[in-house]
Amino acid sequence: MKKIDLGKLVRPSVCGLRAYSAKEIPCKVKLDANESPYAYDSRKIAKLAAAIRTNRYPDPESRELRKAAGKRFGVSSENILQGNGSDELIYYLIAAFSGPVLFPVPTFSMYGIISRALGETDIAVPLDGEFDIDLERTLRVVKKEKPKLIFLSSPNNPTGNCFSSERILKIIETSKGIIVVDEAYQPFSSEKGFLPLLKDYPNLVIMRTLSKIGLAALRVGFLIADPQIIREVNKVRLPFNVNSFSQAIATAALKDRGLDSAIRNIVSERNRLFLAMAKIDGIKPYPSEANFVLFEVKDPVATYNALLKKGVLVRNLADSMKGCLRVTVGTPEENTVFLKALKECAI
Amino acid sequence: MKKIDLGKLVRPSVCGLRAYSAKEIPCKVKLDANESPYAYDSRKIAKLAAAIRTNRYPDPESRELRKAAGKRFGVSSENILQGNGSDELIYYLIAAFSGPVLFPVPTFSMYGIISRALGETDIAVPLDGEFDIDLERTLRVVKKEKPKLIFLSSPNNPTGNCFSSERILKIIETSKGIIVVDEAYQPFSSEKGFLPLLKDYPNLVIMRTLSKIGLAALRVGFLIADPQIIREVNKVRLPFNVNSFSQAIATAALKDRGLDSAIRNIVSERNRLFLAMAKIDGIKPYPSEANFVLFEVKDPVATYNALLKKGVLVRNLADSMKGCLRVTVGTPEENTVFLKALKECAI
Repeated sequence: MKKIDLGKLVRPSVCGLRAYSAKEIPCKVKLDANESPYAYDSRKIAKLAAAIRTNRYPDPESRELRKAAGKRFGVSSENILQGNGSDELIYYLIAAFSGPVLFPVPTFSMYGIISRALGETDIAVPLDGEFDIDLERTLRVVKKEKPKLIFLSSPNNPTGNCFSSERILKIIETSKGIIVVDEAYQPFSSEKGFLPLLKDYPNLVIMRTLSKIGLAALRVGFLIADPQIIREVNKVRLPFNVNSFSQAIATAALKDRGLDSAIRNIVSERNRLFLAMAKIDGIKPYPSEANFVLFEVKDPVATYNALLKKGVLVRNLADSMKGCLRVTVGTPEENTVFLKALKECAI
Repeated sequence: MKKIDLGKLVRPSVCGLRAYSAKEIPCKVKLDANESPYAYDSRKIAKLAAAIRTNRYPDPESRELRKAAGKRFGVSSENILQGNGSDELIYYLIAAFSGPVLFPVPTFSMYGIISRALGETDIAVPLDGEFDIDLERTLRVVKKEKPKLIFLSSPNNPTGNCFSSERILKIIETSKGIIVVDEAYQPFSSEKGFLPLLKDYPNLVIMRTLSKIGLAALRVGFLIADPQIIREVNKVRLPFNVNSFSQAIATAALKDRGLDSAIRNIVSERNRLFLAMAKIDGIKPYPSEANFVLFEVKDPVATYNALLKKGVLVRNLADSMKGCLRVTVGTPEENTVFLKALKECAI
């Protein structure tokens, strides 16, 4: 049998990486992954899916999907690039522009993971005490390291707040690189986001996703930017990256008013959750503009385990936010179960 | 308004690339893209799709899908990595191992396209006069350039033949890099392929896809290799790369005997097509082990246009095989329409 030396073959930057691992943890109430509690109508899905000729390749340009997305975001199809989830669009951005890649921390982990998978330098700048961008430090690092890409998740995961618009604008105006404002959680926010500013800033890229608003199963995300940026990133996109089922169902969902009423329910439940959590002794929830609530507890591991014992799965942020747990907003019934369990744990 | 210099921002290797373009050409009989003429049962699809909770993320490890694929290919789940089509797996292989990337030409265009998108050197070695690997020249280049990856599509697209097993083996034995035998068209071949040799060669990787056997719409491909290779490539895989619909439908289809009877129909129709084409004056078809037939004509552009005028779309290979067209095997009815049209054009 032939022997090979994989250590010599694998790209050195990849050798030390660990694969993403997401164990399935059995639970009754799943509030760990910032998913929407509301699935898309299964009868509509069945009808759309049955109409797909599985033997034909998808539309490589996702024309109908981009048209529907353009309509929703108030831009032209030319401003939109479709992705197999935002994850894939992060991959493409880094493939097209290279690093260094800068982002504040804590934030969505994939900016760093994908930078490293592609062998690019990632630079993590800690947030300030208010979970906002540390502007002075960020601008200093931007000047010194000249990042090609800066990822700003606003509202930010896992902190839940929007970054100050003025600070984001200052970075967009100062940096010679591309600023990606990841608006995955924007639909739950009271702020208006950065879409209206696209025309003024050719180095501004906005990311949106359907994963938080009821369609995580589909893997559909969008880049929204100046057509000249879209054209460059499109050069490294795989032709058939969004499959026919995702294209058809996402197109229908984007036109569906049900999506918006689900979002309103989640926002109102998030506000109820926050207020109720704030009343529990030993629990300190942080205000949220997203579909989850970050909260501090005295003993996060004990609380996490106690909740799980009662069938409620939340996220333990031991790696990124010591002392904190994150709970996704569920249905009213799920939130009530969570609140009851949390009260019992806190006693 | 802010100005940016995109030329300075985009990775130099990406700057000169052109995006993949696949125009939709209206036709009655679509025989241009090596798709199967047989779609998967729409009632089964509707049932599977309706059961999916769209709000939940897909299984990041595609466990059921990999189990079903393992069963079909006679290997363990540990030997399998799932991709959003083989295209994505090519991306991941190059991200994990880097270049140089070697392949014979003409062949599947994505090996070169993705190498260039990732900024890696690609080396194209011309096939010999029999459309087989030019072994002497290939081994010379392997010795000199030490490619990290060698892609061998067998049966090869667009030539339709299998490469000589002895030559492939010689390359596997000689090279210190990874040899990827892309068996996208293997289900249509009379040869047994390279799966039985996996155990002997830790640097052998096999690619399989569902795109040619009725499920192009789903985007599902597989890497099959030694678990230590799978583990390395898995480090650069996006966690949710195969969506829930593709996982569920592909899992069901892999277990379905209908898939195999469709393949048998295609093989028997391919043989009929070949014999009938060989009888037409001015048409020289090449023997095929795939689901398409390559053929030489005196004036490929004129023949292509004449066929299209009759509603039949084939592939003009002007870029890769001057003087040749490629026709995908359709249903018996579609093939009869094609043969009739071809006879009329050839007169």
